[in-house]
Amino acid sequence: MDNHYQIFPVGTIKKQDRSVFVEIYKEYEDALYGLDQCTHIIVFTWFHENDAPEKRKVLKVHPRGNKANPLTGVFATRSPVRPNLIGLFLCKIISIEKNVIQIEHIEAFAGSPVIDIKPYIPRIDSIPNPE
Amino acid sequence: MDNHYQIFPVGTIKKQDRSVFVEIYKEYEDALYGLDQCTHIIVFTWFHENDAPEKRKVLKVHPRGNKANPLTGVFATRSPVRPNLIGLFLCKIISIEKNVIQIEHIEAFAGSPVIDIKPYIPRIDSIPNPE
Repeated sequence: MDNHYQIFPVGTIKKQDRSVFVEIYKEYEDALYGLDQCTHIIVFTWFHENDAPEKRKVLKVHPRGNKANPLTGVFATRSPVRPNLIGLFLCKIISIEKNVIQIEHIEAFAGSPVIDIKPYIPRIDSIPNPE
Repeated sequence: MDNHYQIFPVGTIKKQDRSVFVEIYKEYEDALYGLDQCTHIIVFTWFHENDAPEKRKVLKVHPRGNKANPLTGVFATRSPVRPNLIGLFLCKIISIEKNVIQIEHIEAFAGSPVIDIKPYIPRIDSIPNPE
């Protein structure tokens, strides 16, 4: 499997006191136009601290790093160790000022590269009663 | 912004008659271990047909390609034209046989590269009453 695709960071996660921000690089600011109509965004990050060939080969993990949790395939977990290091976080928007989105909270670390943002659309992104 | 990350396809979308499959490459099959405990998965695809530098520079689009829809930032839409060509689809699992997941439906084209799979976890992936 020699083919691959390139991902470019479009911003970064910033944290200051208790405030959390998705800061989009200036050159991508136009891509936020209209986002003020949304209440929540889906933030895609890159788990850059795990971007090493040996970590990206790991296919099973003990969830939450706890050996008491049985080995599970990474596609069945939210592990930050996986073949493609994509993080997915649903976040509530507090405000948008130019290229900076203040959000309520994110489970990603400060300094995480942001690689995409999508509007959260309940009709396609949620299942009322999964069974 | 010279730094970038590499994404490797881990599978592909297949459609046959009315059946839809996420076929994971054999070498990633172990990553599915335990996924049979889930009812729904989040499938990440790559919009490979748009992987050209000029398309990836587009920051505003008319949603759904309809000029009647006002120009909107790509981060405020689900457009398949965006800086990083990540597609996100919530899918119901029908069955899992070795490296092949049969799903109920996906809005992605047959042949789309699959780049990640995560379990859908309502507590973190959905907002009951967004406001």
